[in-house]
Amino acid sequence: MEFTFKPIGIIDSCFKEKFGIPRQPGLATEARAILKVFPPFDQLEAFKGLEDFSHIWIIFVFHSGMRDNWKATVRPPRLGGNRRVGVFSTRSSFRPNPIGLSAVLLEKIIRERKETHLYLRGVDLLDGTPVLDIKPYLPYTDAISNACGGFAPNIPEARIPVDFSPEARAFCLEKEQSGYPGLTLLIEQLLMMDPRPAYYASTPQKSHFGMKVYDFNVLWKISEGSAFVTACDDAR
Amino acid sequence: MEFTFKPIGIIDSCFKEKFGIPRQPGLATEARAILKVFPPFDQLEAFKGLEDFSHIWIIFVFHSGMRDNWKATVRPPRLGGNRRVGVFSTRSSFRPNPIGLSAVLLEKIIRERKETHLYLRGVDLLDGTPVLDIKPYLPYTDAISNACGGFAPNIPEARIPVDFSPEARAFCLEKEQSGYPGLTLLIEQLLMMDPRPAYYASTPQKSHFGMKVYDFNVLWKISEGSAFVTACDDAR
Repeated sequence: MEFTFKPIGIIDSCFKEKFGIPRQPGLATEARAILKVFPPFDQLEAFKGLEDFSHIWIIFVFHSGMRDNWKATVRPPRLGGNRRVGVFSTRSSFRPNPIGLSAVLLEKIIRERKETHLYLRGVDLLDGTPVLDIKPYLPYTDAISNACGGFAPNIPEARIPVDFSPEARAFCLEKEQSGYPGLTLLIEQLLMMDPRPAYYASTPQKSHFGMKVYDFNVLWKISEGSAFVTACDDAR
Repeated sequence: MEFTFKPIGIIDSCFKEKFGIPRQPGLATEARAILKVFPPFDQLEAFKGLEDFSHIWIIFVFHSGMRDNWKATVRPPRLGGNRRVGVFSTRSSFRPNPIGLSAVLLEKIIRERKETHLYLRGVDLLDGTPVLDIKPYLPYTDAISNACGGFAPNIPEARIPVDFSPEARAFCLEKEQSGYPGLTLLIEQLLMMDPRPAYYASTPQKSHFGMKVYDFNVLWKISEGSAFVTACDDAR
């Protein structure tokens, strides 16, 4: 028994690489993406009524680092990366069928440059992610407020202070004027969650880090439990 | 671009046919199913920690009535079956990729008869449904209580009174003693939601209905806005 699916669209995301992506959706409200819908699914009629929903589900394929082999247990970052739980007890991307599920904010749906674009926020999606399906988020059945969340009962608590060098701040402000709204806040939201793998946090030899957000390199250092953005520049 | 997935398991459900299945999960708490996990995914280790979560997501294939063609708009039962909205604005099973998503209660995980079984409740899943993936329900990211639910903002309000003939009630009580716990309440929960298609509700010529629950036929009639279970019997 096998099922074959063709993507209905692809994600154009502010996240160009895995490092730095929030571990769940909704954690960084400024994290933006556009779902570009493929023909023949791109007719606006197919989305009629969807804009009345504030959130939608994205069912997607973990396309980066797809492996044929999977392991029965994984070490979720949430548990410090050193306790093993079953792969089905996690949202890990390394799973028998590499299917992902994210609830994101739907900002608008527009037709531009002969394509249908869904503007999304609060994403945890890598650029180029193939999307298999979208569905409206139905609070009456999807929002189970009394659910018990096992080893991840609430929002990760790690919140570190974030500051910018004057040059980095000026760079971000300038980009905000030219098509990258909320860039400063986005970087702040991402670094606040301390995206370093757990083993770095415990072995502080390495203190300088870099990630790519949109087409910009963001460089920061960690010292005394704070993040300091030293530089931002154009990656191109 | 195409992706092929093999199911990780199959659903053994109380729902043997489409008619009567709640339109969303969670609406009938007594609706039970077992996810039977296929090897090699059935090792208990792969589920370690999952029982600490009260709910899980089931990502499945709408296998019944799979069609190659899809329509840009559908008429959701929620809108009385006469208003068209975009297929992506609904949870309809007739969609470009027939993938379904349900949050259900996880009761227990056990190894029995050399198989790994996940006992589920509150399901809206047809018997024989192929399951592509399961994930823990994470309330901190999945339960968006302030989400706006478009044309389906809250639980469907239709709630009709349900009564049983003495024979039907006796039949259910007997079955409850022999492996079908909560059968009476399940039938009540299902009929309360008035599973008739909207066009029957407006054309009351047809007043007798039947559905299959587990391996039992349930017959009921509708009169003056109430459901009355006239008979239950073994379908075998």
